Amino acid sequence: MTQPQHAHILQAALRQIPTEIQHVRDYEVWARDFIADDIWHYIQSGSDQNLSLAANRSSFDDIALLPRVLRSVHQGHTGVDMFGRFHRAPLLLAPVAYHGLVHPEAELATVQAAVALQTAMVVSTLSSRRFADIRRTAEAAAHDLKRPVPPLWLQLYSQPTRKQTAAVLQAAADAGFEAIMWTVDAHYKRSSLNLPAGVNAVNVDMDAQHKHTSQLLDERLVFGSSFTEHAPTWEDLAWLRARTDKPILVKGIVAPADAVQAIAAGANGIVVSNHGGRVLDGMVSPLTVLPHLRAAVGADVPLLLDGGIRWGTDMVKALAMGADAVMVGRPQLHALAVAGMLGVAHMLHVLRVEFELAMAQVGCAHVQELDESVLFRA
Amino acid sequence: MTQPQHAHILQAALRQIPTEIQHVRDYEVWARDFIADDIWHYIQSGSDQNLSLAANRSSFDDIALLPRVLRSVHQGHTGVDMFGRFHRAPLLLAPVAYHGLVHPEAELATVQAAVALQTAMVVSTLSSRRFADIRRTAEAAAHDLKRPVPPLWLQLYSQPTRKQTAAVLQAAADAGFEAIMWTVDAHYKRSSLNLPAGVNAVNVDMDAQHKHTSQLLDERLVFGSSFTEHAPTWEDLAWLRARTDKPILVKGIVAPADAVQAIAAGANGIVVSNHGGRVLDGMVSPLTVLPHLRAAVGADVPLLLDGGIRWGTDMVKALAMGADAVMVGRPQLHALAVAGMLGVAHMLHVLRVEFELAMAQVGCAHVQELDESVLFRA
Amino acid sequence: MTQPQHAHILQAALRQIPTEIQHVRDYEVWARDFIADDIWHYIQSGSDQNLSLAANRSSFDDIALLPRVLRSVHQGHTGVDMFGRFHRAPLLLAPVAYHGLVHPEAELATVQAAVALQTAMVVSTLSSRRFADIRRTAEAAAHDLKRPVPPLWLQLYSQPTRKQTAAVLQAAADAGFEAIMWTVDAHYKRSSLNLPAGVNAVNVDMDAQHKHTSQLLDERLVFGSSFTEHAPTWEDLAWLRARTDKPILVKGIVAPADAVQAIAAGANGIVVSNHGGRVLDGMVSPLTVLPHLRAAVGADVPLLLDGGIRWGTDMVKALAMGADAVMVGRPQLHALAVAGMLGVAHMLHVLRVEFELAMAQVGCAHVQELDESVLFRA
Amino acid sequence: MTQPQHAHILQAALRQIPTEIQHVRDYEVWARDFIADDIWHYIQSGSDQNLSLAANRSSFDDIALLPRVLRSVHQGHTGVDMFGRFHRAPLLLAPVAYHGLVHPEAELATVQAAVALQTAMVVSTLSSRRFADIRRTAEAAAHDLKRPVPPLWLQLYSQPTRKQTAAVLQAAADAGFEAIMWTVDAHYKRSSLNLPAGVNAVNVDMDAQHKHTSQLLDERLVFGSSFTEHAPTWEDLAWLRARTDKPILVKGIVAPADAVQAIAAGANGIVVSNHGGRVLDGMVSPLTVLPHLRAAVGADVPLLLDGGIRWGTDMVKALAMGADAVMVGRPQLHALAVAGMLGVAHMLHVLRVEFELAMAQVGCAHVQELDESVLFRA
Repeated sequence: MTQPQHAHILQAALRQIPTEIQHVRDYEVWARDFIADDIWHYIQSGSDQNLSLAANRSSFDDIALLPRVLRSVHQGHTGVDMFGRFHRAPLLLAPVAYHGLVHPEAELATVQAAVALQTAMVVSTLSSRRFADIRRTAEAAAHDLKRPVPPLWLQLYSQPTRKQTAAVLQAAADAGFEAIMWTVDAHYKRSSLNLPAGVNAVNVDMDAQHKHTSQLLDERLVFGSSFTEHAPTWEDLAWLRARTDKPILVKGIVAPADAVQAIAAGANGIVVSNHGGRVLDGMVSPLTVLPHLRAAVGADVPLLLDGGIRWGTDMVKALAMGADAVMVGRPQLHALAVAGMLGVAHMLHVLRVEFELAMAQVGCAHVQELDESVLFRA
Repeated sequence: MTQPQHAHILQAALRQIPTEIQHVRDYEVWARDFIADDIWHYIQSGSDQNLSLAANRSSFDDIALLPRVLRSVHQGHTGVDMFGRFHRAPLLLAPVAYHGLVHPEAELATVQAAVALQTAMVVSTLSSRRFADIRRTAEAAAHDLKRPVPPLWLQLYSQPTRKQTAAVLQAAADAGFEAIMWTVDAHYKRSSLNLPAGVNAVNVDMDAQHKHTSQLLDERLVFGSSFTEHAPTWEDLAWLRARTDKPILVKGIVAPADAVQAIAAGANGIVVSNHGGRVLDGMVSPLTVLPHLRAAVGADVPLLLDGGIRWGTDMVKALAMGADAVMVGRPQLHALAVAGMLGVAHMLHVLRVEFELAMAQVGCAHVQELDESVLFRA
Repeated sequence: MTQPQHAHILQAALRQIPTEIQHVRDYEVWARDFIADDIWHYIQSGSDQNLSLAANRSSFDDIALLPRVLRSVHQGHTGVDMFGRFHRAPLLLAPVAYHGLVHPEAELATVQAAVALQTAMVVSTLSSRRFADIRRTAEAAAHDLKRPVPPLWLQLYSQPTRKQTAAVLQAAADAGFEAIMWTVDAHYKRSSLNLPAGVNAVNVDMDAQHKHTSQLLDERLVFGSSFTEHAPTWEDLAWLRARTDKPILVKGIVAPADAVQAIAAGANGIVVSNHGGRVLDGMVSPLTVLPHLRAAVGADVPLLLDGGIRWGTDMVKALAMGADAVMVGRPQLHALAVAGMLGVAHMLHVLRVEFELAMAQVGCAHVQELDESVLFRA
Repeated sequence: MTQPQHAHILQAALRQIPTEIQHVRDYEVWARDFIADDIWHYIQSGSDQNLSLAANRSSFDDIALLPRVLRSVHQGHTGVDMFGRFHRAPLLLAPVAYHGLVHPEAELATVQAAVALQTAMVVSTLSSRRFADIRRTAEAAAHDLKRPVPPLWLQLYSQPTRKQTAAVLQAAADAGFEAIMWTVDAHYKRSSLNLPAGVNAVNVDMDAQHKHTSQLLDERLVFGSSFTEHAPTWEDLAWLRARTDKPILVKGIVAPADAVQAIAAGANGIVVSNHGGRVLDGMVSPLTVLPHLRAAVGADVPLLLDGGIRWGTDMVKALAMGADAVMVGRPQLHALAVAGMLGVAHMLHVLRVEFELAMAQVGCAHVQELDESVLFRA
């Protein structure tokens, strides 16, 4: 596999994992040397003062575990069923735009890691590789490794016109993507990154590509501009529901009432998220609000959580507080930058091992046993 | 426009906004290089240990937003009516003494920005330019820009004698100032700034100029001195109410009982404030006490808040917790020092854009929708 | 006044107050250059990890003031009656051992400042000057300044034998000391300071001088040693009560039940204190426990508080939470080291001015008005 | 006593205690210069982000003492009975693996200190010296010092087979170990230390030595591996109970329900512990959960606590919150590295002196008096 040196990639990804990399956080430290400054800033930064970003971590660190001892976990496993598919662990690759920013093989490398670790991947609308190519690469890897292709899902950004949105949906359907994770919290995201040459959102109409709020705002305010017209609304959920039989998850919800309304409108699951702290500063962290959302939607609605997952114990905490599964975002790019496909696979392996250890340590043999009883609440 | 270099101004204001300045905070960082040390210290400092100053910010940062998704804000706007006038946003220029400390054109530059952004300006009793000149400049700018003059209000410090106070009121009335914001919390403010040559409180009787507490205190204590005689009291509110039909807002209240008493005595609005943390250290922050004040005075009394507003999300939080509008203080001087009229206009624009973004992101199309439902309270 | 350079005093005290010294804290910063390392460490340090020391300050900083506005304080004063004597402010010089550690004139300089500022001084059993000499100096200063001698009180450490304790009491009575503040929390204080030549506890029997716990502990443990025999007990309070008609204050109480018991046993007042954080680490701060003590003893028992008072607002908070007066400790030594008698007088002046300002700012004309209504409690 | 320089020991232990070492913490600072990097890291580190490790300390520091005054403690002592034996203080040497890592005489030096201070020692299954040799050394020291041998207990790690576990129990019984402290929380501990030459777990079957999780995890996950088979379960407690009449304490419990179940299953005591923060990150601290455990098991079940004990006041807090005794872990190795047997003895002495001082200062003459009344709880 050749790795041509792109200008925005400071050094080629490693071919093997350094022994010093033992935790997900280590990839973040190492990645700094592989990624150009503006891209690094784009990946790492949150909004405004980074309050949301910091809350994502501190909300995990503030929860105390209360492990149970002497329970056998010998027959245990971490498997979970979602939408008719078995996941070996309650862990998915979160949708992340433009993997090409950190590695020349971009999403093709990531999806090979997903196959290797049998981990579902949510492919971003803003992928730098075509959905069909991602699918084809997954199948080739599955063939080589003699494993099935894990679930591939589409992360959908509503496009300026429904015709354009429909085209994205069709391309995803053609690539066999099995579910639709519709992001509803990022229409007003500000960004100042200029995409480097060769990194593009190849799956969307180039002329209609999502303009960054920051560009629009140079001239005028938000209200009264045409910009507010294209923001997703409940009507778009109805349209989407009518258009597809695939599972729809609404991503970017934190208010319990919104979760209830989304399910009532036909959504099949909710992704509790503050978009990695990138969109609105000072938001409640997903973990903090999670128990309220679980209480609002009841036991049967799939709730996924992202934002701040870096350790196996974070997964235990999220599941104990009501999540069915979690997603990991930025660490994909860190690991991809440092060691390509191998890095992403190792990062997923590390998280899964830590999760299994933590489950065993709190005395739970199956994810269904993870509940408030393993938490200490003052 | 010529900008003669004054000794206390380290470099002339810029003629255009550097692209690095994207947030209100950036003006503070840049301003350090434009302002002499003693003036910088005077502007930035709070009282004693800066506990009040720090609380103003931390009280905002400690509040978590709970945004709602998928609501259309397409027909939204940020307008608000106060005292029969429409404000395009719930944002006013707080009264700030001596703009001449940071820019040769002083309040004349600021008021031009106020006209450009259609933002109300509260003119300090301690302005370094005459009320009439400020008014004339506003009208000229309004003519040039083909926009109306926004509301200009008087910030009133009670003078040593009522005759002197009446003279200030008369000058403000002559200049068409539409409301009176009477400051009641700063009689005992300590200050050690020696005003530089050419910067004076030109609107008040020079001989009777407000002596700084710190000067008085060199010789004797507070109680038993004549100094306590001139502090404003409830009798002065009655006198003021009898003297004018214009709206009176009492600035510097944090105790709910005081707000109730002020309204009962004829005040038309309250400014919840700790004087930017400059007067009494260890005070409750305005934001913290705001819901208690709203509960005390009911829904209809205009409550303005200042102290710590630096981000659009701060405005969302203040309005959600009970304010009708907010004021921004020190950032005026930072922006004025860095880029004069243009800086102040840009600073206001940044705050308004951020506020509109934040409103759209929490799903509110009008300021009336901002209430406790967009906050997460544990 | 000559100031011979003693080896443990690094430079002679200044003859006038530098303008940079404006707050009590400033004396602490300046004092570092006047005091030898081991003595500085002895003065500044708390016990173990300094948790008690830090809590003394943070407990003040954590309280938020809720000032009232527009109340006239024109006829106000800060006077308070205690034990039949009028104090111009609710502020006393706390007992502090060995003023000679930082100034050659030792307690003689301090008492002159007490006379100048008409502030009561609590003279330590471990004073480095004789009670009679302190008294004589006070009278001479009072004569020069044409002011009365302010109250002088004895701080009493119980001595190894009652005969020795009686001798201390007699010397204090001979010197006209008006009350007895009996310290009950410092028997087990550890200390490693070797007193420099010329600094001694001249008022106690030299052979029987209080041995430091740290010396005793070199050989054996606490329990089972003779050391526990000499610790003060309730029986000693009965003995003391029977021996004198003067007011007795018990210093070093934090438990409400102990305060109640002390009053029942004939004590006339309580000093809520953790000995400046010097004795037992991890203690509750006096301010935190103060309202509980006030509730326990009722409105009429004099409660004094020390520990952490550095600002006028601290005095407001202490009185609002139930104290009748406060004492200031370490700052005496800081000010004495920097500027001798003048320094101590100025330090007291600063505190009183700040206290008067703070009272005026919260809208209270007399100390009796300081109560919970000027605090914001969430 | 010769101290050959081992490669992993950077300098020979001192022959006398430097006067600068006055607190337990001082040994930690000094020890850094005696111990090689990898071993230092192994000793000091906690799991993942060290959240559990930090919580162990902060939970002590967050508790405030409310001392009582004027109570005589003259007849006081710190003795406590456990399992028919008198302990001079409620303080034991916690089980710590491989003392040979820091001192050539290893557990033989430690046990001599235990004899000298009459402190019970819990000997680790992973001791670097044979149980019989430890016993013999204890008896020789007892003979020299003319003191009895203090209680020696076995810390038991369940071995891969019951036969192997039985062999450990037999060796301990042969050595006269009086109780069994069975550790149940460390099966999944990760470690990367390679034992230096000459340091081995000489009391266990070498071929079956506990493999580190980190080694196992290189190849496969936890669940589905044989690794989960060997984790201790409730069945093992039943087996152990049937096998011995000696007291059994279960170490590593934090959940009240587990404590209740252990006692019901025949255990005689509980050690509340998070394994020094080494095993599972983000756990509740033992001190925080202690009152809940005491409430669950009632007044009569012996509860020991370890994790973070560094000061005499920590012991007071632990006993006041429900512990019958505490154990100290890492400081053994610090003191052993710095000054061998002498260091451990001095470290124990320091803790006991501080504990006696703190008891006297809070006004308790016997450990039974230490209860919630000496704590301030807001």
